[in-house]
Amino acid sequence: MSKQQELDALVQAIAAAGEQLPGLQRRHFLKQGLTMLGAAGFAGAASGAAESGTPPNVPAWTKSLGTGVVTDPYGSPSPFEAHVKRRTVEWLTADKLASISFTPLADLKGIITPNGLVFERYHAGLPAVDPGTHRLMIHGMVDRPIILSMDELMRFPSVSMIRFLECPANGGMEWRGAQMDRLQFTHGMLACCEWTGVLLSTLLQEVGVQKAAQWVLAEGSDGAQMSRSIPMDKALDDALIVYAQNGEALRPEQGYPVRLINPGWEGNTCVKWLRRLEIGDQPWYQREETSKYTDLMPDGIAREFSFVQECNSVISNPCPEKPLKKPGKLWVEGLAWSGRGKIKQVDVSFDGGVSWRPTRFTSQVLPRALTRFGVEWDWNGGPAMLQSRAIDETGYVQPTYGQLRDVRGTSSIYHKNAIHTWKINNDGSVANVQIS
Amino acid sequence: MSKQQELDALVQAIAAAGEQLPGLQRRHFLKQGLTMLGAAGFAGAASGAAESGTPPNVPAWTKSLGTGVVTDPYGSPSPFEAHVKRRTVEWLTADKLASISFTPLADLKGIITPNGLVFERYHAGLPAVDPGTHRLMIHGMVDRPIILSMDELMRFPSVSMIRFLECPANGGMEWRGAQMDRLQFTHGMLACCEWTGVLLSTLLQEVGVQKAAQWVLAEGSDGAQMSRSIPMDKALDDALIVYAQNGEALRPEQGYPVRLINPGWEGNTCVKWLRRLEIGDQPWYQREETSKYTDLMPDGIAREFSFVQECNSVISNPCPEKPLKKPGKLWVEGLAWSGRGKIKQVDVSFDGGVSWRPTRFTSQVLPRALTRFGVEWDWNGGPAMLQSRAIDETGYVQPTYGQLRDVRGTSSIYHKNAIHTWKINNDGSVANVQIS
Repeated sequence: MSKQQELDALVQAIAAAGEQLPGLQRRHFLKQGLTMLGAAGFAGAASGAAESGTPPNVPAWTKSLGTGVVTDPYGSPSPFEAHVKRRTVEWLTADKLASISFTPLADLKGIITPNGLVFERYHAGLPAVDPGTHRLMIHGMVDRPIILSMDELMRFPSVSMIRFLECPANGGMEWRGAQMDRLQFTHGMLACCEWTGVLLSTLLQEVGVQKAAQWVLAEGSDGAQMSRSIPMDKALDDALIVYAQNGEALRPEQGYPVRLINPGWEGNTCVKWLRRLEIGDQPWYQREETSKYTDLMPDGIAREFSFVQECNSVISNPCPEKPLKKPGKLWVEGLAWSGRGKIKQVDVSFDGGVSWRPTRFTSQVLPRALTRFGVEWDWNGGPAMLQSRAIDETGYVQPTYGQLRDVRGTSSIYHKNAIHTWKINNDGSVANVQIS
Repeated sequence: MSKQQELDALVQAIAAAGEQLPGLQRRHFLKQGLTMLGAAGFAGAASGAAESGTPPNVPAWTKSLGTGVVTDPYGSPSPFEAHVKRRTVEWLTADKLASISFTPLADLKGIITPNGLVFERYHAGLPAVDPGTHRLMIHGMVDRPIILSMDELMRFPSVSMIRFLECPANGGMEWRGAQMDRLQFTHGMLACCEWTGVLLSTLLQEVGVQKAAQWVLAEGSDGAQMSRSIPMDKALDDALIVYAQNGEALRPEQGYPVRLINPGWEGNTCVKWLRRLEIGDQPWYQREETSKYTDLMPDGIAREFSFVQECNSVISNPCPEKPLKKPGKLWVEGLAWSGRGKIKQVDVSFDGGVSWRPTRFTSQVLPRALTRFGVEWDWNGGPAMLQSRAIDETGYVQPTYGQLRDVRGTSSIYHKNAIHTWKINNDGSVANVQIS
């Protein structure tokens, strides 16, 4: 009997036993038909073990030809992954023109966020910018002001860096208590891409910055003319004039054809659809750095120019969107990041912060990038309180809610980086709770 | 006069001077209207310089609101980037069910290939695999054979690594002379992604590999049941059972829901839609490791199991798809990679290999990953012959065509990694030529 005949015979035998899957042709599996061996370790999770040489099944797609290569395609995710998408919170903003959609962190792996899932934030809607006519001007306190087309910008030396991008309002709905019911909404104003472009320092050298200059105004070409004042130190450090993300051109919602990225700083400073860089000797005190994107402190004074996104972390599995299905060993993992540099260490607690266990990094560990951590856990089927606590290379330790509120009060919107708690219920469901 | 009034007045003034762009509403730019300053350096490329405080233009999209955040979107590239897509070569294969599409390397930046643009290769078409019913069996010379569902596989510890993926036939059409007219076709069976999954070594520990075992058979669930024999050393080193690429689930054409990745090895060994791993004491001599994916040597004997993708490089700007537009300083860049580890050095020649200049790396430099290199060049408007030559951390130097053919002859299809030449013509167009 040939191998294929063996496989076919097996399928027939199982078909006779009969199990019809809804919405599909008859396909059968040895799920219950084989004794489970090797219950130790992660194999305890396995649905069944096979005799040596026995194939698990021969699905319809193995017994037929698939579809051929399509001419000139741009690929899409599997239809089975249609639930993995950015999501909006209807009540969060007054108008969709100045609103946000969130990255589905629960379904993401590794550290790269695919371009189709990077969160969006608009202040006057998404402009349809023509790259052929778009221009970037650099002027002000410079010796040689210039206007660059995209072609001209691309003649300059380029660099690529994998860095996170986070809205400073990420988690802002949680300042006064646990509110959001998904990881996507508690932490999803967050992404990490490989950004490619020209260092701002390269362009500033080109135009010749005058001695007294201390600040750079970055202005977008959207209807909001979103603009922020950037200190010269950052401009000359790692600020990047970006035209590509994850290999391809910037997506429209990410500032196509060109944006600013200030690695590790408030996403709001990373002006999109960038049109103008003005060099000056003081900040401009624009709308989005005075009435917004400042931090109201307990004494009633607003802290301004709080640029750095502090060290933060969250567990992405389990989480409300990824409940536990059954007791036993499983892989608990999450993301950590710091605007100050590399992540040095992440610990997790299963008892709400009473005791801590070290995790290991399972991705590249890069400065100002998302870092993936993980740890094995043998869930006993009872309740648990999961937390992660990140420490960055400067020694900064992610604070508890209590520690954060002691300094910041509860009137803030931005820069909430407290240790987050997921409550595991007996049924494996996961709830967002707060422990101070 | 307010700033906005100033801008509007400027637009009116330019409009009066009059320049209508075809296919667009009237939009005007100071392209010719301002004296160009700072002709030194890259600014020599700039279309014009602006007086301090003068904006370059006020396009329609700045004077209007954009579109609001869409509920539950999965994003797409800008319509202006519609030309950036995978492409097929109609004559290359007899049937689209066993064919290929190519990565558009000329338009890519950095080292990450976005999922929608990763080259495809099918042997019996693209199967539509249901992840809910798909199973992975590990059996053969093991103590505890198992059958895993996707949920079960995801309970194991995971790791993420950025690694290139290359079909060993990449460049195969060039063995007997320069033939293809695009970088996409000379080198586009190549991509680099962050792959996430479970180390094969983790699973092999779980099932308990028997002492005499030396090989692993990986078999796909597609209609071809594509299968390859993998030596145990690789299986226990960095072979990865992958379920995610660049953060999200594997794309269908990349093996959804699970595939093998053997970092640095022939793409063909990285079996997609992975269904079965059999452990044995000798290779299986399957179709795709005997009649195909072997290297016909000058003596008429076929070399088998030539797994490693050798050190290679190519210049991506300029290239046939990216001709030079005008003389002056510009950024020449490209990609280098080696299946043996990290890239140590890339040099470029502008005179067909007579003299060489060092380049610098402008991306992360990771083992078995694409590495981006670049160098400034002041094109004088005359003809030139551009080459890149990579050296990896083992000291292996990318060979010339002469060196490669001395060993391999011209009857091969696979493992062509010779130094590539782009000929620059006076008009800036770029042609594919060969120098031995």
